[in-house]
Amino acid sequence: MLNSHKTGLFAAAFLAAAALSPASPAGERKGRPWTFEDILLVPEVNELALSAGGRFAIYSAEIADTGAKRTRAQIRIVDIRARTQRSIAHADIAKSLKRIPNSGDWSGLLDIGEGLQLYRIAADGKISPIVENRDVVLVGKADLSVAMGGGAPPHEIGVLAYDWSPDGKSLWYSQLKAKSGPPPIRFDDAASSLRSRRRSSIEAEVEFFLRAPDGSIDKIITRPTSDRMAMHAGGKVVWRGDDIFFRIETPDGTPGSVFETRAWSRKQKRMRVVSNERDARTLTMLRGPYGGSLSATGTGALLDFVENGPGEERHRYGRFAFTISDRNYAASRDGRKAIVGTRSLETSRYGLALVQRTGVREIYGAASLSKCSFDDRLSHAICVEEGVSMPPRLVRVDLARGGIEPIVTISPRHNEIAPLQVRARTWINRDGYKATGYIIYPRDFRAGTRYPAIVITHGFDADERFAKAENQWNYPAQLFAERGYVVLLINDPLPYQSANLRAAYSAWSRGSGPPNPETVRRLIWIEGVHSLVDAIGELAAEGLIDPARVGIAGYSRGAQMVNVAITQTQIFSAASSGDGGFLEPSGYAGWPASYDPVYGGSPMSEHFEQYRRFAPSLNARKVCTPVLQQVAAASPSQAELFDALRAAKVPTQLTYYPGTSPASDETHIFHIPSNRMLAMRENMAWFDYWLRGKRDTDAPFPERFAVWDRMAENGRPRCGIAESVR
Amino acid sequence: MLNSHKTGLFAAAFLAAAALSPASPAGERKGRPWTFEDILLVPEVNELALSAGGRFAIYSAEIADTGAKRTRAQIRIVDIRARTQRSIAHADIAKSLKRIPNSGDWSGLLDIGEGLQLYRIAADGKISPIVENRDVVLVGKADLSVAMGGGAPPHEIGVLAYDWSPDGKSLWYSQLKAKSGPPPIRFDDAASSLRSRRRSSIEAEVEFFLRAPDGSIDKIITRPTSDRMAMHAGGKVVWRGDDIFFRIETPDGTPGSVFETRAWSRKQKRMRVVSNERDARTLTMLRGPYGGSLSATGTGALLDFVENGPGEERHRYGRFAFTISDRNYAASRDGRKAIVGTRSLETSRYGLALVQRTGVREIYGAASLSKCSFDDRLSHAICVEEGVSMPPRLVRVDLARGGIEPIVTISPRHNEIAPLQVRARTWINRDGYKATGYIIYPRDFRAGTRYPAIVITHGFDADERFAKAENQWNYPAQLFAERGYVVLLINDPLPYQSANLRAAYSAWSRGSGPPNPETVRRLIWIEGVHSLVDAIGELAAEGLIDPARVGIAGYSRGAQMVNVAITQTQIFSAASSGDGGFLEPSGYAGWPASYDPVYGGSPMSEHFEQYRRFAPSLNARKVCTPVLQQVAAASPSQAELFDALRAAKVPTQLTYYPGTSPASDETHIFHIPSNRMLAMRENMAWFDYWLRGKRDTDAPFPERFAVWDRMAENGRPRCGIAESVR
Repeated sequence: MLNSHKTGLFAAAFLAAAALSPASPAGERKGRPWTFEDILLVPEVNELALSAGGRFAIYSAEIADTGAKRTRAQIRIVDIRARTQRSIAHADIAKSLKRIPNSGDWSGLLDIGEGLQLYRIAADGKISPIVENRDVVLVGKADLSVAMGGGAPPHEIGVLAYDWSPDGKSLWYSQLKAKSGPPPIRFDDAASSLRSRRRSSIEAEVEFFLRAPDGSIDKIITRPTSDRMAMHAGGKVVWRGDDIFFRIETPDGTPGSVFETRAWSRKQKRMRVVSNERDARTLTMLRGPYGGSLSATGTGALLDFVENGPGEERHRYGRFAFTISDRNYAASRDGRKAIVGTRSLETSRYGLALVQRTGVREIYGAASLSKCSFDDRLSHAICVEEGVSMPPRLVRVDLARGGIEPIVTISPRHNEIAPLQVRARTWINRDGYKATGYIIYPRDFRAGTRYPAIVITHGFDADERFAKAENQWNYPAQLFAERGYVVLLINDPLPYQSANLRAAYSAWSRGSGPPNPETVRRLIWIEGVHSLVDAIGELAAEGLIDPARVGIAGYSRGAQMVNVAITQTQIFSAASSGDGGFLEPSGYAGWPASYDPVYGGSPMSEHFEQYRRFAPSLNARKVCTPVLQQVAAASPSQAELFDALRAAKVPTQLTYYPGTSPASDETHIFHIPSNRMLAMRENMAWFDYWLRGKRDTDAPFPERFAVWDRMAENGRPRCGIAESVR
Repeated sequence: MLNSHKTGLFAAAFLAAAALSPASPAGERKGRPWTFEDILLVPEVNELALSAGGRFAIYSAEIADTGAKRTRAQIRIVDIRARTQRSIAHADIAKSLKRIPNSGDWSGLLDIGEGLQLYRIAADGKISPIVENRDVVLVGKADLSVAMGGGAPPHEIGVLAYDWSPDGKSLWYSQLKAKSGPPPIRFDDAASSLRSRRRSSIEAEVEFFLRAPDGSIDKIITRPTSDRMAMHAGGKVVWRGDDIFFRIETPDGTPGSVFETRAWSRKQKRMRVVSNERDARTLTMLRGPYGGSLSATGTGALLDFVENGPGEERHRYGRFAFTISDRNYAASRDGRKAIVGTRSLETSRYGLALVQRTGVREIYGAASLSKCSFDDRLSHAICVEEGVSMPPRLVRVDLARGGIEPIVTISPRHNEIAPLQVRARTWINRDGYKATGYIIYPRDFRAGTRYPAIVITHGFDADERFAKAENQWNYPAQLFAERGYVVLLINDPLPYQSANLRAAYSAWSRGSGPPNPETVRRLIWIEGVHSLVDAIGELAAEGLIDPARVGIAGYSRGAQMVNVAITQTQIFSAASSGDGGFLEPSGYAGWPASYDPVYGGSPMSEHFEQYRRFAPSLNARKVCTPVLQQVAAASPSQAELFDALRAAKVPTQLTYYPGTSPASDETHIFHIPSNRMLAMRENMAWFDYWLRGKRDTDAPFPERFAVWDRMAENGRPRCGIAESVR
């Protein structure tokens, strides 16, 4: 049995982390300091694929392109043995890079000027079309687009998703099709759903096709764009003999929804319903060696790793300190081996777990392993390896033996930077809840000095990744450290640690308790704030930070935490709240199912009292800290908080970052490099001004200093410091 | 002195009204009944201009064009002496038709395919450009447009407004200019103002120019589009010697705003500020014979007609039973005579008042006189004459002697219809407030029969005009009467009748009391509802209507009245509420200054209790009648009311009427003929179903009957009839 046997890499990882710890002498710095540009230009690799023979790999590095006003993809081919790479093309978008079975080529969805289309990419870099759909459909936050959630920058889609049959001869793919004709008259819910409209949109459908080896094409099914499975995981199918298994969402009105697995018979050209499930947690079907579905369940320091199905069968692989995800899922052709991506419960590091009937082998690198591509036999993989202070590189992982060897670096520019000192840490708050995270030490850190500090929080995204916008957004964590701040990247308490927490999160996502709203608020927000406050208390007690100069920053989920923290505690001296708004009363109309478990119902009801106690805008008078809101949405909730803070004489600013034109918006995670740069510099100026009384000479909007001066003068004085750290 | 001397026409008007009364025998019908198409095709004349010699007139009839999916303008030239007319052109829009001084031609802003541009129109019908601005700017409720209020259908503007100097040699005009460059980063209020955004918009400015006789052009001033005077009255200037007087709005944050009069000196090419005023009530400067400004003030059955200025001077012309407006304003060249449009306080009929130092002469026709064009000496005018059951026609008015003679009919189709029996009526409610209005009797009305009734209400628009969409919106009043309903067009109590009412309205428009919110609610809404209830009670007592089958309909202001009426009384058995929403809590964010005087402040505050008592959605459980909402906005407030009614098990439907494409919206007063037609038929089916238990075979959405049946079955029973008429 391999259960719980680590690959031996853990020790190495530990040593690597120790080498980055503040215990290493400050004088050993190699390289240069961070710049804002460095943060802006951190590459993100989301696509990586081995070639069929395993000798080459293709990947795409998404890097901000200031001239193009967007992130663009650099597509590179790597010679694994030679450890060399070359850039073969640029694309606005590169998605779903896959090897074409029984060929030396890859395929990918590329936007190289014609919208997202399916192309063949030969090993020599030649790009040729496979499926081109000229009737592209605009998606994302733009006029006349199909809504796709806040995350997608506006782009055009010809081909939405695809997959190859194991022999490479059949092609499954999906397209968007705009509905034609004038807009329909809408009744009832279809009309009231327009209440939160911010832009025009168009209606479209998702059409699925199968191209047979002879080139003939069958249309398989048409799904509405409200089917999230069809919109976001249309290429995640399972080819089994004559059948193709795929999933669709058939909403039943519950937030968890219902997902149906269907099978298309290639021979009979008929579809059948295989099964359905509620609350699907993964977009991929994670099949284990027994043919069932893999998951990690339970609560505590270790979770049960199990395989459910087929049918009533259930296999237990043991208890492990990781959660699993579908990001690195693969299965061998014979189905006897599977790989799942893991995330360590202890260090938030990403790794792999090789699953066989005989047991589970965990594989961790010196830092996180992610975006892996596996050979068909699951004998080795190529992955991205990166850490909080380790720039991403490609590594080859020997899955059987566990060896990991670096292949190529992804961003030479970031290798030039002297790594900042970073230490992973777990804090236990007053109520016993654990929160993980990282301390980034100021450049030239000297023990015995108290530093001003900035907490950055975003759900569970403080993990072993390199300067990820998903976590640090427009908060220039590395630059804060360069300028002498202690930076604390702190996660919310992980729900896996306690049945209570898990029940609260589950009520939130389900749309109703139990537990009751007050308990949900305590477990999901107040306990998180206690974690932050107690962590700060601990670090102040250790002499690391100056408790009178602590700022807090977070976007989205993090903005909820910022807004609750500043209304429920008095320990922060400056705050930056990014594109948030959930919890404010005016958000109810758009997200009733998310509000109900938190407040019991609409603010326009007997539940108003619950809002009065907790909604940040209704508690603005308790705020003792200046609050900057940087937003892409300019939503009613954001305006509501701004108005309330200003009415309460709290120094506050609302900064709206627009899209590239009036026809489109900036996205929740900013995609426009100039906006991101200005927002980072605005944060630096904001915290320098309020935490250290400094006027940043690099402030992007220097005319705002006069406004801040007026607010500082006229705003209410900071609440008593004496009672602040409690 | 001419004071209070009527022209003698009043008696004739009285006789004309009497002829239409139900006293006339039913058998005398001439002509055919009304159809839905007749209502749709009622022409609206907004532009009418005499030629310089007075022999011809030009006018534009705006008529729904189903093929064009909009209202289009038919431009016609009338030979006044011959009493003939011919259509010379069609345009998407025709605005600001004026004669060109010292020429036989007219000018006008026409959209004939190039956006709104300034053209010359010769007496022979030839059209040629005067000013063409190719950089058109899209305005109205559409993507990438300049916002212009809810009323403007999307259209392109090259030239916005203009005026000729008295000698016809100089031309004053304005254009819109789109601001170029990427959208700006916005701070604070400029950011929070986006909270209610429903579509993308662009920024633009208004530029004013003066073209001198030699063709040279000076740019006079650039104004923001937030300057309502510049946007909506840019051509309303006064030429006085070398000076051109015009007004600009310089907002100071108060709802009343501040308006500045400026003068441009043509010789010195310099501008000076002449004066400024708060709360300007008219877009035109209504100059009287003394050089001051004309207005009607005070309260009661008669108002004081006064001229204020110049300086501290003040002249009183006496007390009259009319209010004045700028719709028919004109002044003689020597400034010694002025004409203002009047609206009778008694009958809501439009007329004219000739103002001289010697006194005021009132001029009324058999029905309303409006859209008049005057000769330079103010000796005669050509006007539109129309009444509630009199189709519009052009008449010549002898201003000195008061004679009125018909010239041409505007819509032969509507002359074919047998006029419905209509009677003007004034009701006095339980608290002594008077409300004016009209009763339209069912076709083939027989005294002694009780009829089902439908109340249509929209502020003060139940006046002497012919089937105006501004009043009856998508409620097919004439068809209701054809189908056997008594139709009541009832105004709100006119504020001029009482200092209390006037103070309440003034608090509402000013954004703050006194009076206090409860009093404002009582005077502006409850008293209006009492008027409706007491009018119905009176007519039920007279045996005219069946109180168990009374419906209520109103859009906009009327929708407020509908929504309050159904939550505060139980007398209605069906309701149709059109594109409303004001009074609901979620409307606060967009219109705080309009809500504050009504509720005291935001619903998210200690004022919530006031909302709980009055906001229709928060009183949905009291509603005893099915409620249809037909909307163009699909605003949060409309959705809020729909949700609340449904939760209270009140039969309800929300129908959203879209724009012609996803890039634009239907407007508050529907401009898309197919939408208007469907909405009228939907109202007919709705009232027939709930008031008479009939399934209209002409129902536009017959599949909704099954939904209505379910609602009728599952919805709460109608509240007790016994206590309903109180």
